[in-house]
Amino acid sequence: MKLIAFDADDTLWVNEPNYVDVKQKLCELLSHYIDQETLEDRFYDAQIRNLQHFGYGAKSFILSMIETAIELTDGAITSKEIQLIIDAGRQLLDFPIEVLDGVTEVLEMLSTQFDLMLLTKGDLFDQESKIARSGLVHHFKHVEILSEKNEEAYLRVLKKHAVEPADFLMIGNSLKSDILPVVHIGGRAIHIPSAVSWAHERVEDEQLTGKSFTTLGSARELLNLFETVNS
Amino acid sequence: MKLIAFDADDTLWVNEPNYVDVKQKLCELLSHYIDQETLEDRFYDAQIRNLQHFGYGAKSFILSMIETAIELTDGAITSKEIQLIIDAGRQLLDFPIEVLDGVTEVLEMLSTQFDLMLLTKGDLFDQESKIARSGLVHHFKHVEILSEKNEEAYLRVLKKHAVEPADFLMIGNSLKSDILPVVHIGGRAIHIPSAVSWAHERVEDEQLTGKSFTTLGSARELLNLFETVNS
Repeated sequence: MKLIAFDADDTLWVNEPNYVDVKQKLCELLSHYIDQETLEDRFYDAQIRNLQHFGYGAKSFILSMIETAIELTDGAITSKEIQLIIDAGRQLLDFPIEVLDGVTEVLEMLSTQFDLMLLTKGDLFDQESKIARSGLVHHFKHVEILSEKNEEAYLRVLKKHAVEPADFLMIGNSLKSDILPVVHIGGRAIHIPSAVSWAHERVEDEQLTGKSFTTLGSARELLNLFETVNS
Repeated sequence: MKLIAFDADDTLWVNEPNYVDVKQKLCELLSHYIDQETLEDRFYDAQIRNLQHFGYGAKSFILSMIETAIELTDGAITSKEIQLIIDAGRQLLDFPIEVLDGVTEVLEMLSTQFDLMLLTKGDLFDQESKIARSGLVHHFKHVEILSEKNEEAYLRVLKKHAVEPADFLMIGNSLKSDILPVVHIGGRAIHIPSAVSWAHERVEDEQLTGKSFTTLGSARELLNLFETVNS
């Protein structure tokens, strides 16, 4: 193994629950206009529609909330309520980073033996800010922030760092972004599912047929896994 | 010279005039609430205030337009008008890229002799999209998209690519982001002022005292400059 990469959001630290909280605030704000289920469905549609224009991240999320609120209230929402949506969304840019259980110990152990990379997708400004707030950056030899994590993007990163897919291990919580594309290009992958995940990151069971990767219950279990491998 | 880096927006292609156009649409939309000068001042304040939360780029620009519109109309702007602001802003994500005069020839000539880097700051998704739309990416050995272009960021990039500042040339339109930080770390810089520039990128004359860099009238003049150096 020449390079081990970690996803960031919901692999190293808690992220998605913050988005769920803000979405809940949107639901409460619009509760006199619309029921929660319809709102969640239409908000998801807006997010997917806006991905191609705005990409991932907090600013894109805020713009999708605003558009959904205007659309679902047929323009009845007031601009002061829209300001409340922006204010709720702004907390996504500076929430305190809660590092997940076992992550610090795992990074301390692995960084003495391997080149570690933090490999995340999303909004550059937003991700850099979370990385800085996490206090974990010194464990990583490389940091790569991508706009999308698909097979092409992984191949580009590996080429840039002169690493063959067979010498690459990716660790992350998203089957869609962290596991399947890496397995498809011949790399190794460890899946650590998170308690809460965004619908867009889910994959169908049949996409997993014949795919080989390891699933762990938490980052802490990486300690045992690597100790076993090394002994 | 081991590495020549080019800024992108308003150095390789036209960018700022698109932002000026969208801001003009905001002025027109709010013309029955507020005069243009007040709007421009307050919008600029909102942009600077939001830089620390949202960073640079189109999404940040759109959110600042919305906040300014709500603030200056004291909430009287309707949510349908806010949707018009978002729609106007969305064009910043997909306007056709107009490559500046001489740029293609310069990149063709220099890429045969030097390692070229595209070195820009802004929103990752937004910048990647413009780079792809420009059709210029094949001239560049490296592409670096940063959230900020200051001395620390330049030193980080040069270290990553194992290039000494004395072997580095930066070419760009912004004294603040492309020229002064590079001169300060001991690199060389060529300034090609653009017709339209954002107030935030301007520097005071006294900051230029004693600083050594070259100023050209257009990218096309780089052809002569390098031919003279090479002959």
